[in-house]
Amino acid sequence: MIDAIYRLAVRGAPAIGVAGAFGMRLAANAWAARAPSSAAQALPELERAARALSGARPTAVNLSWGVERMLAHARALAPRTADAAQLARALGLEAEAILDEDAARCDAMGRHGASLVPEGARLLTHCNAGALATAGAGTALAPIYEAVRQGRRVHVYVDETRPLLQGSRLTAFELQAAGIDATLITDSMAGSVMHAGKVDAVFVGADRIAENGDVCNKIGTYSVAVLAREHRLPFYVVAPSSTFDLGTPSGASIPIEERAPEEITEGFGRRTAPHGVRVYNPAFDITPARLVSAIVTERGILTQPDRERVRAHLA
Amino acid sequence: MIDAIYRLAVRGAPAIGVAGAFGMRLAANAWAARAPSSAAQALPELERAARALSGARPTAVNLSWGVERMLAHARALAPRTADAAQLARALGLEAEAILDEDAARCDAMGRHGASLVPEGARLLTHCNAGALATAGAGTALAPIYEAVRQGRRVHVYVDETRPLLQGSRLTAFELQAAGIDATLITDSMAGSVMHAGKVDAVFVGADRIAENGDVCNKIGTYSVAVLAREHRLPFYVVAPSSTFDLGTPSGASIPIEERAPEEITEGFGRRTAPHGVRVYNPAFDITPARLVSAIVTERGILTQPDRERVRAHLA
Repeated sequence: MIDAIYRLAVRGAPAIGVAGAFGMRLAANAWAARAPSSAAQALPELERAARALSGARPTAVNLSWGVERMLAHARALAPRTADAAQLARALGLEAEAILDEDAARCDAMGRHGASLVPEGARLLTHCNAGALATAGAGTALAPIYEAVRQGRRVHVYVDETRPLLQGSRLTAFELQAAGIDATLITDSMAGSVMHAGKVDAVFVGADRIAENGDVCNKIGTYSVAVLAREHRLPFYVVAPSSTFDLGTPSGASIPIEERAPEEITEGFGRRTAPHGVRVYNPAFDITPARLVSAIVTERGILTQPDRERVRAHLA
Repeated sequence: MIDAIYRLAVRGAPAIGVAGAFGMRLAANAWAARAPSSAAQALPELERAARALSGARPTAVNLSWGVERMLAHARALAPRTADAAQLARALGLEAEAILDEDAARCDAMGRHGASLVPEGARLLTHCNAGALATAGAGTALAPIYEAVRQGRRVHVYVDETRPLLQGSRLTAFELQAAGIDATLITDSMAGSVMHAGKVDAVFVGADRIAENGDVCNKIGTYSVAVLAREHRLPFYVVAPSSTFDLGTPSGASIPIEERAPEEITEGFGRRTAPHGVRVYNPAFDITPARLVSAIVTERGILTQPDRERVRAHLA
């Protein structure tokens, strides 16, 4: 599971939160299968597993959120659980609950966010924050799916999202499979289509949201937010409330994962840059709260996020 | 030559201007080799060649500029030239002159532009506007080469420039070969490195500049210009004066070439998007003059371009 998360075989902030929880379930099962032991004896192994899982991707808070929830559950249950096998079964149920809750949160985000998608809306999205990123209908794409379900016509411009092309490989695929009108563009074309008046609003997901409303998301999101502001377009972030990290005062203190240079220099099996060239490959960037028109969570719509309003939204 | 220009085997606005001129030389030679004829009899053939060459890429004005200059030269010479063979020789000299003038213009742009590159400058460029785009040291890169020649240290962030990756394939290669410190990024990272305070100025080339100073350049240039403005960074366009098209009142009337969807869906030799997905693939965008800090030509530095100042610069 650590490898799957690191390689992005599972990706998307909510999905890796669920995957982290199931990783903890796997660890509990493996421990229980090894030899009979008490529930308390399983805890150090679960703590080791939690550290390893959370370390697979440092930026997305949902991963450590899912892992920590499982660990807290294990700690709470251990004193009143017969043995490690029973603890593993209880953690299995908790992981299933996390899965179901994630799907339910997607539905709720879809319902709230659909009110921001009028008939004939022409939207732009970056990366993949759809069904392939969650256990349900997605985050940024959930309002689009819901608006279409309610009978509205929607067109979506899809940024290909270099370096790993989650936009062309996942979002374009998802929207096509759902029968939703979509046009694929390179990331460098977003400004041009906005300038041509072809976009009404931007919808993106988030990997972590700081206490002050700064949004950490796939690299390139910040540029899209600046372009949206320049063209006076609303910029909506859709993410479950578990994406907020109140221990992070602002985007400046979010660690940004840097990934291998080969994602840029030979991204798809062919070398497209000179050998030895220096590469900078941050996986995420920070969009300041002032550029965010609203954050949609399963709780509702939080407009013009700042520290006070974030606190109130989550209270 | 038409095929080489269409396939981008020759690319870069100044280089295709030179290539267009040599295409006319080829046409004149081919006609003269076919059968003895008068110079006047060669003109219809040269007119056909001019149309075909100029049509290979509709956006870059340098191409039709180079072709038209050759055609005008042929028309002027024909009445006082013995035969088609002599006309072809004269056109050969004219093409050589265009080549030499382009290299000299690059040197002049480098000298003027180097004054905008202080010691330790950290620059960002998009696409390739270097030696591989001209007959000389380049346009946007010429001031960088000149500043380094004068002993200044420079660091250049290079946008990879999707879909065709002129940044990673050409600019990174050029700068590396010249021993200039460069870091390759995806186009989606430009905003992030600017936000991190790692960039002091942007240098780009141009494919056409309208009478009012609007700049047509590689797709993605407009986004970089918006980002530069957001971060209060100077945005410099470096281009020979032949890039100005006074017959084009503003960027709105510049035709934007749309290229094949496969450049986006299978740009790396592997399909990276679902079959049947709709694609929008404009090769260029328009940066409004208000976002341009200065245009550097072989004539000097034109700050805050507008119709009146463009006219004065070219007078």
